[in-house]
Amino acid sequence: MANEAQVLIGGEWRPARKTGGQMAFRAVNPQTGAAVEPEFPISGWADADDALAAAAKIAADPEACPGGRIADFLVDYAASIELHAQTLCALANCETALPIQPRLAAVELPRTVGQLRQAAAAARQGSWRRVVIDTVNNIRSQLSPVGPVCIFGPNNFPLAFNAVSGGDFAAAIAAGNPVIAKAHPLHPATSRALAELAHASVLRVGLPRAMVQMLYAVSETDGMRLVADPRISASAFTGSRKAGLQLKAAADAAGKPIYLEMSSINPVVVLPGALAARRADIVREFIGSVLLGTGQFCTNPGLVLLVKQPDSDAFIGEAAAAMASLPAGTLFSAAVRHNLAAAVQELISGGARLVTGGKTVGGPRIAFENTLLALTGKQFLAAPELFQKEAFGNAAMCVQAQDLAELKEICRNLVGNLTGTIYLDEAADGRACEEITAILRPRVGRLLNNKMPTGVAVSPAMNHGGPFPATGHAHFTAVGLPAAIDRFTRLECYDQVPQNRLPPTLRDAAPGQWQCVDGRWRQAGPATADE
Amino acid sequence: MANEAQVLIGGEWRPARKTGGQMAFRAVNPQTGAAVEPEFPISGWADADDALAAAAKIAADPEACPGGRIADFLVDYAASIELHAQTLCALANCETALPIQPRLAAVELPRTVGQLRQAAAAARQGSWRRVVIDTVNNIRSQLSPVGPVCIFGPNNFPLAFNAVSGGDFAAAIAAGNPVIAKAHPLHPATSRALAELAHASVLRVGLPRAMVQMLYAVSETDGMRLVADPRISASAFTGSRKAGLQLKAAADAAGKPIYLEMSSINPVVVLPGALAARRADIVREFIGSVLLGTGQFCTNPGLVLLVKQPDSDAFIGEAAAAMASLPAGTLFSAAVRHNLAAAVQELISGGARLVTGGKTVGGPRIAFENTLLALTGKQFLAAPELFQKEAFGNAAMCVQAQDLAELKEICRNLVGNLTGTIYLDEAADGRACEEITAILRPRVGRLLNNKMPTGVAVSPAMNHGGPFPATGHAHFTAVGLPAAIDRFTRLECYDQVPQNRLPPTLRDAAPGQWQCVDGRWRQAGPATADE
Repeated sequence: MANEAQVLIGGEWRPARKTGGQMAFRAVNPQTGAAVEPEFPISGWADADDALAAAAKIAADPEACPGGRIADFLVDYAASIELHAQTLCALANCETALPIQPRLAAVELPRTVGQLRQAAAAARQGSWRRVVIDTVNNIRSQLSPVGPVCIFGPNNFPLAFNAVSGGDFAAAIAAGNPVIAKAHPLHPATSRALAELAHASVLRVGLPRAMVQMLYAVSETDGMRLVADPRISASAFTGSRKAGLQLKAAADAAGKPIYLEMSSINPVVVLPGALAARRADIVREFIGSVLLGTGQFCTNPGLVLLVKQPDSDAFIGEAAAAMASLPAGTLFSAAVRHNLAAAVQELISGGARLVTGGKTVGGPRIAFENTLLALTGKQFLAAPELFQKEAFGNAAMCVQAQDLAELKEICRNLVGNLTGTIYLDEAADGRACEEITAILRPRVGRLLNNKMPTGVAVSPAMNHGGPFPATGHAHFTAVGLPAAIDRFTRLECYDQVPQNRLPPTLRDAAPGQWQCVDGRWRQAGPATADE
Repeated sequence: MANEAQVLIGGEWRPARKTGGQMAFRAVNPQTGAAVEPEFPISGWADADDALAAAAKIAADPEACPGGRIADFLVDYAASIELHAQTLCALANCETALPIQPRLAAVELPRTVGQLRQAAAAARQGSWRRVVIDTVNNIRSQLSPVGPVCIFGPNNFPLAFNAVSGGDFAAAIAAGNPVIAKAHPLHPATSRALAELAHASVLRVGLPRAMVQMLYAVSETDGMRLVADPRISASAFTGSRKAGLQLKAAADAAGKPIYLEMSSINPVVVLPGALAARRADIVREFIGSVLLGTGQFCTNPGLVLLVKQPDSDAFIGEAAAAMASLPAGTLFSAAVRHNLAAAVQELISGGARLVTGGKTVGGPRIAFENTLLALTGKQFLAAPELFQKEAFGNAAMCVQAQDLAELKEICRNLVGNLTGTIYLDEAADGRACEEITAILRPRVGRLLNNKMPTGVAVSPAMNHGGPFPATGHAHFTAVGLPAAIDRFTRLECYDQVPQNRLPPTLRDAAPGQWQCVDGRWRQAGPATADE
């Protein structure tokens, strides 16, 4: 117990309050398979209860978190992360095996601080508020902070989607909501280091001490209790479909919004003309995308749809050869590897042909061979649910349809995904692309042309979302500011409330605030002399 | 059977397909208690199944419903409703007992066509799409039609919230979604007449025949099956909390969005200064609001919160006297009266004092005495859940807190409501208003000052929504365009898609379309010569 890490609750680092005995865990270094010091606690309900009470207290004071101070916090925190980049990347590397260069230091950490700074700008400018003013009826509305938010971080972005520093965190805080972060237990030391920086920034800028709280792990039951608690206003979860649906059921029953990102196989359609004209390039782009981060991306291209022809056989052969020639990356955990092996086995049992890979890599390092499966369109259509099983990791499946009609029928059988990609040659594939687009479009959040789906730009126009079961609600996005903030807001309206009683952003004089006044967007001007 | 009304399915009026035998019902004229001809069918699942298939077929064709044609439909339909105003109002009056003048002819019908025309403008201008363009990364996003929408209409607005002509209908159609309307069985003839006009307009403007479909009634089980069906993309329901929660559970389990408006008692706080300065006015406004439409409004002020003093006793006495002196309006149905009587009884059994009313009005007309209950703050705080029981109809309850502190504590115990109102005297009540606002604000969708909550303006700035259990999701509004359309959209994103493959609204040249380009809102210009 002496060495056990502390939780951040109520604005203090303190020992966890547990329900039972020595509930604790250690992270494992996936490169060596060895457990890492120190121990981290599995919190009992008492911790969650304390965190909820502290968060609710903050949410009850509308003056506690002005946008400017939130922005100051986000900027300060981002700078602090940059200052401690080396330590953070080393910790994350140890716990996830993601390479320090380029992934952690050159990509994920800059992305993390970039998100925090974009969130700061949104908080400062109030661009997320979507102010609407009807001057004739004197009715005004805007989005407002929803209240305490609980964030369950995923395993695959120890920095950029960490519950205490990532996209959901930035979005929830930007609106002024206190956050209870439930770190992912695969990278607790990274999460602790981030939470320490966040906490220091909270104190430095003068936000309420308990604005950012963090637990490392809770029981399944307590997780469900947390998202349904009367003091929670919304939750976000990124992870497996099974856990996501469990939390969703608990939150739904209590009438609490929960935003889920659960699973996606991100179909990539390669049309015949594109394949004929640029096969080598497409193979290279596919391999780069499918093996990036050992395939452990939400937008990993797990399903390639082709029309059967000599070119498509060649595509599969060349992709398999490239996969076989490249070293298998390290996976996050034994559980990830176990699930990957099981999914691959399930697909093979269903009739998929193993083209390359398929076996666990021996030794202490946690790895699985780069794996490619293949299938006919007919096989896919005979069991579309089975063949949309996500094999999270460095694996993918190519489906060869006998013709374009069968390819379209396959697309009609796809469930909701985060992304859908079409590789096309404008001259040869124009009409086919149009037809496939019409089918794919309502089934995916983001549609790409001639570009692999990994590499989710943090852009105001991004949609990292999509129809169920990829997410829980197709109206919202988890990446892209200010839109991602939407999830952590409620709509509030003021009817006949005089200027002096309105929130500053809804007044006639609201310097720099975008307002849609009587149907026209404009930036509000400064106060006039008589105001 | 010969006289039984037909359902509108698949673009045709046809006899209902039933599961069992003679499943049918008649409307009842609440003024006389007598059943009205003809019989209307309770559809079996076969009807719902046909409707779903027809709607899904439309949704699969992205070219089927361009915004301009949708707008033409809405405008044509609105004009058609105006042309048939006399018939529609007569039918609605017969089925609901709402007076033709002023309610139906001068208020609700103009509101209905106004909504349809605002929806038409939104459809034509694409103002609901919230286009965001990132020119640096060439990523573009917008809201798009979600797909087939099922709408369950309420009992209390036979025109303006009818499933086939009201706010939800207008919002769902405006985005280009095919609608399956489930009319409220209390006003089937009105619904049929509206659906006939809608269908004629659909055909006139050349929308897909099955764009608007209508059933009169389905079993509870089939309702739950409908909102969870794979071919449905979203549902909307306005009605009782019990039915709403049942549908919500079914939709949630299937990962389908459902937007619910379930119940609200719309607390009105009258602060001491306001009461001292303007008691007679406030009593008059309260009585006007609470008895409007026999109290059968979503925003009916069912709970008045006062600080105990001679003025507050006088308020209660004067309100009771006014209620007693005014005739009891007619209620929609025996079921509404039964529920009202039961709710009043439950409140009295819990300790509320009956100040006036409380009894069923004898005779064939369906009516209940105008009813006022009173309670101390202490009583309320001893059983806050019981005393927030909605008594839908011409009844209200006044709670007298012993002081401002107790009044605030009462507010802290309020669940989610559509509206919250504060009557204040700026000089005397300023500080108290501030404190109460902070407590009330997160618990209500719309906050009013010195104005009763009935009379929901159809304004772009309106929020007819609020925290659970008033609705199912506090981010959305059911009234106000274009915001109400949000519920029937999904976010879609285009990444590296060339101009010629983008939807027209996302192109650089999109005449008149509002676009947020690199963080600045602007109206896009026309195509240039070389485009």
